[in-house]
Amino acid sequence: MTIRYPNGKPFIATPTSSKQVKNSFSNRGQSLEDDLNETNAFYLAHQQAVVHKKPVPIQIVNVEYPHRSAAVIREAYFRTPSTTDYNGVWQGHYIDFEAKETKNKTSFPLQNIHEHQMSHMAAVQNQGGCAFFIIRFTNLARDYFVPYSAIAPWWAGMKKGERKSIPLSFFETQICISNKYAPRIDYLQALRTFVNRTESEENNI
Amino acid sequence: MTIRYPNGKPFIATPTSSKQVKNSFSNRGQSLEDDLNETNAFYLAHQQAVVHKKPVPIQIVNVEYPHRSAAVIREAYFRTPSTTDYNGVWQGHYIDFEAKETKNKTSFPLQNIHEHQMSHMAAVQNQGGCAFFIIRFTNLARDYFVPYSAIAPWWAGMKKGERKSIPLSFFETQICISNKYAPRIDYLQALRTFVNRTESEENNI
Repeated sequence: MTIRYPNGKPFIATPTSSKQVKNSFSNRGQSLEDDLNETNAFYLAHQQAVVHKKPVPIQIVNVEYPHRSAAVIREAYFRTPSTTDYNGVWQGHYIDFEAKETKNKTSFPLQNIHEHQMSHMAAVQNQGGCAFFIIRFTNLARDYFVPYSAIAPWWAGMKKGERKSIPLSFFETQICISNKYAPRIDYLQALRTFVNRTESEENNI
Repeated sequence: MTIRYPNGKPFIATPTSSKQVKNSFSNRGQSLEDDLNETNAFYLAHQQAVVHKKPVPIQIVNVEYPHRSAAVIREAYFRTPSTTDYNGVWQGHYIDFEAKETKNKTSFPLQNIHEHQMSHMAAVQNQGGCAFFIIRFTNLARDYFVPYSAIAPWWAGMKKGERKSIPLSFFETQICISNKYAPRIDYLQALRTFVNRTESEENNI
């Protein structure tokens, strides 16, 4: 049974269908969320970073206490999150990101991103944190690392009535995350590449 | 109705009783959690930090979709968290803390702290993050800022069979957080004091 937000959208990354699995070379049928959970567990075990997925916020209304058993929540509602799904620390840096999947092959629809995620990431960047997206093109078997600052102009454009999706050609200018056995999605390597690029650009000014 | 973890402990900071409210000059009857939520909202609005409380982790088993209404969770269970309750970013620093209240007047019982919180904070410190506790002595109307590194020796002592609580005299050597109208609990000021002290100690070596 799919669990949904009040607005009807699933709150868990959609599992890949059997058809997608056949077409995918990288994710072996796992959702991006599963891959990231494994990756974060790997980073934690190897003392490379401390990153966790935030639980889904729930408004609890009624709880039962059956005799000698665990408490059972009998009435609760999904609340709208006010942050992104993942955050943590890597070598002293605060990192904060959102993971998105699309089945599209030619562009990424901006409707996958929510207003609260953009405003949270803007605040994080303003405080000197690293805010970014991990975007999976499921049917292309590619995962991209895209800094918040690169998504922001497309988001602003959409709000002014410009295009509602970001073309694949844009992602091809971004960092493609290599898929490995362990860690599954080495986004820290992509982050390191991004940080080094940014620093060398700053030195060239 | 109090909501409890499977082990019977309440998962929300215990609200202060009417007796405590009379004795308290600082918190005006609000729980530490309420005060921290207000403080974090103040920091966010004033662009001083981006810190959020993590939702309680829940295992959802069954959800109903009443016609034209929001989805209702009908069966769910509390899960044990693997991190602390609060984290975020302040001037590029990753910050991570746990808030604790005690009604004791002479010591802080270490049983208020859980193993997963200590191991998470050790990992955070190891990655260069700022890990600390905010400890409220409800009946003394005092809130202390205590770095993880100062609690760790007491915790290690307890595990070796030494004392199970930290005496108030120890807290009196730590930073007392000033209580104000806004922000309610200015823990960033305490963190700044701590960071400055640590840096000047390092310079004196």
